[in-house]
Amino acid sequence: MEKTITDMLRTTPRGPLIDPAPLARCIATCFECAQACVACADACMMEGQSGALHRCLRLNLDCADICQTIGRLLSRQHEPSYRVLIAGLEVCALTCRTCADECALHAAHYEHCEICERTCRSCLAACQQLLSAFELASPR
Amino acid sequence: MEKTITDMLRTTPRGPLIDPAPLARCIATCFECAQACVACADACMMEGQSGALHRCLRLNLDCADICQTIGRLLSRQHEPSYRVLIAGLEVCALTCRTCADECALHAAHYEHCEICERTCRSCLAACQQLLSAFELASPR
Amino acid sequence: MEKTITDMLRTTPRGPLIDPAPLARCIATCFECAQACVACADACMMEGQSGALHRCLRLNLDCADICQTIGRLLSRQHEPSYRVLIAGLEVCALTCRTCADECALHAAHYEHCEICERTCRSCLAACQQLLSAFELASPR
Amino acid sequence: MEKTITDMLRTTPRGPLIDPAPLARCIATCFECAQACVACADACMMEGQSGALHRCLRLNLDCADICQTIGRLLSRQHEPSYRVLIAGLEVCALTCRTCADECALHAAHYEHCEICERTCRSCLAACQQLLSAFELASPR
Repeated sequence: MEKTITDMLRTTPRGPLIDPAPLARCIATCFECAQACVACADACMMEGQSGALHRCLRLNLDCADICQTIGRLLSRQHEPSYRVLIAGLEVCALTCRTCADECALHAAHYEHCEICERTCRSCLAACQQLLSAFELASPR
Repeated sequence: MEKTITDMLRTTPRGPLIDPAPLARCIATCFECAQACVACADACMMEGQSGALHRCLRLNLDCADICQTIGRLLSRQHEPSYRVLIAGLEVCALTCRTCADECALHAAHYEHCEICERTCRSCLAACQQLLSAFELASPR
Repeated sequence: MEKTITDMLRTTPRGPLIDPAPLARCIATCFECAQACVACADACMMEGQSGALHRCLRLNLDCADICQTIGRLLSRQHEPSYRVLIAGLEVCALTCRTCADECALHAAHYEHCEICERTCRSCLAACQQLLSAFELASPR
Repeated sequence: MEKTITDMLRTTPRGPLIDPAPLARCIATCFECAQACVACADACMMEGQSGALHRCLRLNLDCADICQTIGRLLSRQHEPSYRVLIAGLEVCALTCRTCADECALHAAHYEHCEICERTCRSCLAACQQLLSAFELASPR
């Protein structure tokens, strides 16, 4: 997926809005994390008859929606509001961290939670790197 | 739509996570705003051959995605992360304000921009009222 | 919400792609159904510790995603592919019927399932009416 | 991304609903296509001041929404409605083909349309292969 994202960034009329390497990485991890969270919610539904995974299921659903939306926003290169993008990235990072921390509680018992935690942490790291790139590009 | 939202909040197993009146209002305006922004983007595509509406089109697409996602998060009553919800509401308010301010520049010429501006401002106000309700419920 | 949808349809540059009454109705019920299904999935998560509501939860999530997407497609008036719109409406109708039939099995015990069933059936009816309008507009 | 999808399928409680190879491939291409279509719509907005890319922009938006939703449905392994999944895959294939055919008209002039066409055709092929796998699994 990252190859196609990079190709699209290279061919967009006025060029990417920021350094394409951390941007492509962040877009790719947002979509990857959205998918993993949808899948982990589904897995948690089947395991969690005691209710122990309810919080995990719910945060998975939230994280899937947020990551998907931020992945879409970052896929648009033209006429951005930088304030919206940066605030969106910060919420995405917070949601990924929150979901990862919850998944971590169950990672020893459920391998899907372990994989989902890892995917959320990759997305968190990619959001933070892109936030740094934005900060470097326009120091306040 | 607000009637169905209120009914769902009334019948959810452990009750709504906050005062249901501002919550139902905010959920309803998030979905209403998402729809209006999708429609305004489509209208802007057809009008804006000079490029004057490109920024409006783009912010409409972002605002549609954000409002829809926050509307979904707020529709879930159980096992929330309040930090994620509050941060999400703040991004939603910022995006609605940004989109409304852009639509306002074109409202005199394009009635769909005027309607979309109004819808974004309603959603912004509903987000702010719900943020106040969260603050009252758990003073820091 | 239907008022704003109708206003947007009235002011779109080249007019709505079909009779605006069934179109506005269908768009409104798609978004209403998406919201109700997200809420019902969340409620089912909390009730269904025996697993009896797992299928309901899952179909709710699918129906939320499909209705939301078809609501977005129908909100765009320009340069449509009628084949895609009609096929999309048919899937939306099928998904609403499937979800409503599952909700119906639990409606006696869970009021949120009863409300969700009703909302799915409204959306199903609105999809069917819009499909009829498309058929009248372009008899094969 | 396909690696994470495959890992999630391997660890889901009751196993994937079908042969995991074409399933993982189809989920991955749905998300990849959703991203490429969002990016191509954004690029088309900036190029298409003559209106020649309006249809491309619009079909990109539709294809992004459909692919994303079908990618989510296929990420859920438990308690499916096979009829909904199959009908959803058929709409996804139709939408990808329609969008690819439109992109093809502009591929000689705009490299992003060429990349998007290729991505849509990959997703179309993956949907068709998954449809074949469903047919083999349950001959009518």
